[in-house]
Amino acid sequence: MTAFLRLGAAGAERPALLADGRTYDLAPLTGDVDAAFLADGGLDRARRALAEGRLSELPDADDLRVGAPVARPGAILCIGQNYAAHAAESGSAPPTHPILFFKHPNTVVGPYDDIVRPAGAESLDWEVELGVVIGTAAWQVEEEDALRHVAGYLVGNDVSERTWQRAESGGQWSKGKTAPTFCPLGPWLVPADEVDPTTLRIWSRISGDPRQDSSTADMVFSVAALVADLSRYVRLEPGDVVLTGTPEGVAMSGRFPYLADGDVVEVGVDGLGAQRSTVVAG
Amino acid sequence: MTAFLRLGAAGAERPALLADGRTYDLAPLTGDVDAAFLADGGLDRARRALAEGRLSELPDADDLRVGAPVARPGAILCIGQNYAAHAAESGSAPPTHPILFFKHPNTVVGPYDDIVRPAGAESLDWEVELGVVIGTAAWQVEEEDALRHVAGYLVGNDVSERTWQRAESGGQWSKGKTAPTFCPLGPWLVPADEVDPTTLRIWSRISGDPRQDSSTADMVFSVAALVADLSRYVRLEPGDVVLTGTPEGVAMSGRFPYLADGDVVEVGVDGLGAQRSTVVAG
Repeated sequence: MTAFLRLGAAGAERPALLADGRTYDLAPLTGDVDAAFLADGGLDRARRALAEGRLSELPDADDLRVGAPVARPGAILCIGQNYAAHAAESGSAPPTHPILFFKHPNTVVGPYDDIVRPAGAESLDWEVELGVVIGTAAWQVEEEDALRHVAGYLVGNDVSERTWQRAESGGQWSKGKTAPTFCPLGPWLVPADEVDPTTLRIWSRISGDPRQDSSTADMVFSVAALVADLSRYVRLEPGDVVLTGTPEGVAMSGRFPYLADGDVVEVGVDGLGAQRSTVVAG
Repeated sequence: MTAFLRLGAAGAERPALLADGRTYDLAPLTGDVDAAFLADGGLDRARRALAEGRLSELPDADDLRVGAPVARPGAILCIGQNYAAHAAESGSAPPTHPILFFKHPNTVVGPYDDIVRPAGAESLDWEVELGVVIGTAAWQVEEEDALRHVAGYLVGNDVSERTWQRAESGGQWSKGKTAPTFCPLGPWLVPADEVDPTTLRIWSRISGDPRQDSSTADMVFSVAALVADLSRYVRLEPGDVVLTGTPEGVAMSGRFPYLADGDVVEVGVDGLGAQRSTVVAG
């Protein structure tokens, strides 16, 4: 397995590649893991450079902050209620069409950065999701061709404020989805040809206690179906991130308390790594 | 009145300034009318350069395509049902909180570019809106300070596909708002200190026939109230565009037919110029 990551201070991350427990510097190959790199076959180029022994190890990798594994996306597209059991815990029937809303791209943070609870946010919730990173533009593509447009996969947390999402929104969810730090991504971007997105375990824990534990096999709409459906309505672009919905086990269900300052939020997808974020007051 | 605009082929526009019927080249001052230029007091700097006679006229201005007057925004935030009569024609009561949804930033086109009706779009609609361009970051600001964060104003058309928005969306509107060309902006960006956003006539015509004709005085939430409210939920950034809602007189009301190929869509806000777009099949 190879994994792309970005290491360094926020806004000054440098690209790297993780393979066999070693971290290699990608700076000689690209300035960043961004839209241009993805669209231009950069993931393949980097893996080829590794196989040919042309990459050097990053000696100080363990000392560096881990950023989101892709540069700031042009858009973050989120899918709602894409696991039947989560739709049920939210009080809804499974959707008949994929449900689309957006987060502002400035919500993205790294996988171990703090989740900042803004003033007035008293019903802060977690949502572990399989994230899809678009590699080539997709507009009105068929489901059988859809996965060709996917560069890779990552873990995303669609952090949500439920009062904002539901009571102060007029029914449009974005208001509760888009405060700063509400989109931890990473730790890794794993190339699409190394992942089967249809059978991944997906889970979350809050301060050590299990919350979500499901499989992407339970998605109402598969990744291929989502990319094809979205592409009927929006031109997906290289670097865009699609968060594909969360399984049951969030606080909104009433079964668990909302997040409190000091809580440790762990979310993960098998094969794509895990995040560990602390909730802090904003 | 001074107006900023961007002239040239799509993706290669150059910045310009319109004053007293003359068009001046801003290229010596800035590469673009973008987030950095807006955040750094660029509008003031450009007007000062004009006043001091330091700008040269663009001789071929009339021959150039007019692009959107701001570079690709980091986000396009849209407000729903912000005029009571439009909420009523949509079958809703006036909202108690501003309603937020997003368009993908890749929807932006110039004010005279075609509106491309995508395959399957049979209920295409217009929405003239007052657009607000953010000049400095705004996070949890008070209403009395909110307008300080506004760089200027422009005309926007929140092009909408009503079947996609309402019947294929699970109730989240973005699906019907975000196909390519669904966000014509411009022709001009007018600096905030030259505009009173509370009393602007706002209108649309389809192939010569009047449709919308209202005033921003009829907004449920003023521009200042919107910026303050949004900033509780999202950190607004320089270059972000906020479309502030549309008045009554859209096709969704049932009083007018949806857009057909060949229709000419004119939308305008007094003092900010007018758009003229042709609907073409995609």
